[in-house]
Amino acid sequence: MCRVSMTRRGFLTSLAAGTVLARSALARAQGPPLVDGEVLRQRIEALSVFGRPEGGTFADGVSRVAYTDADVAGRAYVMGLMRAAGLTPRIDPAGNIFAVRAGSDTSLSPILFGSHIDSVPSGGNFDGDLGVLASIGAIDACNRAGLRTRRPLEVVAWAAEEGVAFNRGLSASRIVAGDVAPSDMEQVWNGMRRGDAITRIGGDPERIMDARRPKGAWHAYLELHIEQGGVLDREKIDIGVVQGIVAIERFEARITGFANHAGTTPMAERRDASLAAARLTLAVNEIVKSRPGRQVGTVGKLELQPNAPNVVPGAAVAIIELRDLSVNLLASLADEIRARAQQIAAETKTTIDIVPASSNAPAMADTAVQDVIERTARDLRLTAHRMPSGAGHDAQMMAQLVPMGMLFVPSVGGISHSPKELTHWHDCANGANVLLQSVLALDRV
Amino acid sequence: MCRVSMTRRGFLTSLAAGTVLARSALARAQGPPLVDGEVLRQRIEALSVFGRPEGGTFADGVSRVAYTDADVAGRAYVMGLMRAAGLTPRIDPAGNIFAVRAGSDTSLSPILFGSHIDSVPSGGNFDGDLGVLASIGAIDACNRAGLRTRRPLEVVAWAAEEGVAFNRGLSASRIVAGDVAPSDMEQVWNGMRRGDAITRIGGDPERIMDARRPKGAWHAYLELHIEQGGVLDREKIDIGVVQGIVAIERFEARITGFANHAGTTPMAERRDASLAAARLTLAVNEIVKSRPGRQVGTVGKLELQPNAPNVVPGAAVAIIELRDLSVNLLASLADEIRARAQQIAAETKTTIDIVPASSNAPAMADTAVQDVIERTARDLRLTAHRMPSGAGHDAQMMAQLVPMGMLFVPSVGGISHSPKELTHWHDCANGANVLLQSVLALDRV
Repeated sequence: MCRVSMTRRGFLTSLAAGTVLARSALARAQGPPLVDGEVLRQRIEALSVFGRPEGGTFADGVSRVAYTDADVAGRAYVMGLMRAAGLTPRIDPAGNIFAVRAGSDTSLSPILFGSHIDSVPSGGNFDGDLGVLASIGAIDACNRAGLRTRRPLEVVAWAAEEGVAFNRGLSASRIVAGDVAPSDMEQVWNGMRRGDAITRIGGDPERIMDARRPKGAWHAYLELHIEQGGVLDREKIDIGVVQGIVAIERFEARITGFANHAGTTPMAERRDASLAAARLTLAVNEIVKSRPGRQVGTVGKLELQPNAPNVVPGAAVAIIELRDLSVNLLASLADEIRARAQQIAAETKTTIDIVPASSNAPAMADTAVQDVIERTARDLRLTAHRMPSGAGHDAQMMAQLVPMGMLFVPSVGGISHSPKELTHWHDCANGANVLLQSVLALDRV
Repeated sequence: MCRVSMTRRGFLTSLAAGTVLARSALARAQGPPLVDGEVLRQRIEALSVFGRPEGGTFADGVSRVAYTDADVAGRAYVMGLMRAAGLTPRIDPAGNIFAVRAGSDTSLSPILFGSHIDSVPSGGNFDGDLGVLASIGAIDACNRAGLRTRRPLEVVAWAAEEGVAFNRGLSASRIVAGDVAPSDMEQVWNGMRRGDAITRIGGDPERIMDARRPKGAWHAYLELHIEQGGVLDREKIDIGVVQGIVAIERFEARITGFANHAGTTPMAERRDASLAAARLTLAVNEIVKSRPGRQVGTVGKLELQPNAPNVVPGAAVAIIELRDLSVNLLASLADEIRARAQQIAAETKTTIDIVPASSNAPAMADTAVQDVIERTARDLRLTAHRMPSGAGHDAQMMAQLVPMGMLFVPSVGGISHSPKELTHWHDCANGANVLLQSVLALDRV
């Protein structure tokens, strides 16, 4: 948290080298528009106050769960910044905040960029917030440079990205992508109707179907986000160029043994569901690691029945989650896990049914947009690395409508969804500037 | 359930052989007193009505949890049977029901025998009930035979054996053995004060300390119980002669890894508490089975933190339970498990603390009483087998005060604590008669 003196280090170093934006006539004429890293830091700190634990500091993180008072207050702060940048924020029926800066050619569709400001409970100060505040910072930079783009530039703060509220995690960007029905507004969570929750943040549940946008509604969508993993930090890389957001396959493994007295049932006579669950957990890990690549597999949830110290468990339910950009690889891993499960069932005298629980298709980033981001990063003398996003993002919804691109900046230690989440200020500034220059590069295409 | 035609088979077969009770002068003079197997069956069926699920049958088992209406009603039924046998039931301050049949020598201490009639929720019709009703049947048999013992015969129906109610499982036999304090009466469970619960079944919490009995209060204690395991059933043995009730050592294994995003954390970077828990579960099983003997070890309870499909578990708590007659063996197993846990912790980049959670000393059956039971069984031409009891029983409390003996009859498939619990009627009758003849044999010593 004490790296302020390093602010914009990477970027300024690049500037000093004299080669930045060499391809841009505009940059040569007026100097490249720059996001002010110091202002960005101040705004991240200011936004962190909304949802900060009572009596806490920046290091205590934030609980800005969608639809809460903290969320409403944070959104008001963000809309104030948009107004200060000369924009007029508009809230769509789903509760998303949009703000457009006009371009010179009214026939062209806008370039959309942004992220979200809602958080998980006890979350960090960078997840989502960085992308929204960097986007507003990019508008400020254009204003300061007196730069007129061809296309309109549109900033978005998506609502309810984290999927904390309501059983069906209907993020507001998912609604924009069209996955919504009027009946969704009737869902109740913690005594609150979804429709009322959306009204609370300025949306209009009566007109929810009007929040849907058609394919091609924008020229492209860009999102800057912290990595939420440790790859960039560990490998000392400045910018992650996201290749896509991984597919997520979840399976429920239902293990049936026979519950029996833990004192009177000899070891050889047991049909212990917990032993089968343990072997399955290890098998998932081993199978996922047995192939080259960046796929991950997790048994994060396990429930034993009856889960009592003096009873040999008669049943267990485990959730197996697999993630990768390649659905073929996931299908092949699932096949191998299923086969191994049958072997484990036979050897432990249990039965194991592996039932699909949920399936999320991968969302590929547009390769041309990836190229723009990578080139821009290198022009700024920043190191860049192509990588999948293992986490879900609003960008995956936008990929259904328009060419999508996403860039990551390092998360210290890969920690996220935690008050300990940390991205150094110079990395925040680097990300904001790569975002801005990529938007400008797309505007020139 | 349709084995009524087999009632008393084993015993009557023995009688036909003409060698039963050859050593007993009394038996030669009057014929051996016999428990009426048909009446025993009727009474087990009648008692099963108290706590039977609404609209159910005998096969639906019983929920006669201590201190509930069903328990109170079942106890009233039992006291009625005692009165019908000419006894005067007395409820001690802890709620135990005692009933004495006078002996011929008033200077001698009584022989105590019985069991309990409370059940686990959704329990079976034999666990406890058989021992109580067989004991009353034994008194009936003595009455019918006009037999006067030297010692008083005392029947007991212990209260609250199953330890379902209240956090500290203070069975009423434990109170009799002296492990009680007045403050225990203040404990609250499900809104009920323990003192009020005991009052409800006719006990007297104000005088709870008077329920304690001194060492030597009885000449001996005998208990007939179903095995609750599958050894006798599988090996076609009529009677299990209990060598003792195993020691139970419980440990809490506290595993600490690091909770992280299941999508963004590469496999190699994880500190997954669920992998460590899985390996520990398998290690406990393997270590316990690696030694000869009848020891058992179970991981029956496991909780992952945060137990969410999309989070690499950061912590886990598992309960390891070990049981055997030999505390030395248990200590050695625990040492080996602890050493293996440290290895697993190192290999999974977690920490594992194994903390003692509870410890129950073994309760050895008196070897002379074991001999009496085994000889009696063989005299009745029944097969007998010495074995530990893996389950806890009231007998283990009594072993602290007086010479204790316990006999088991087969449980079909070893099923217990389940409506499916089943002991064939002829095995019930065999057990009752071995109990009776053992009591009489002890009276003659």
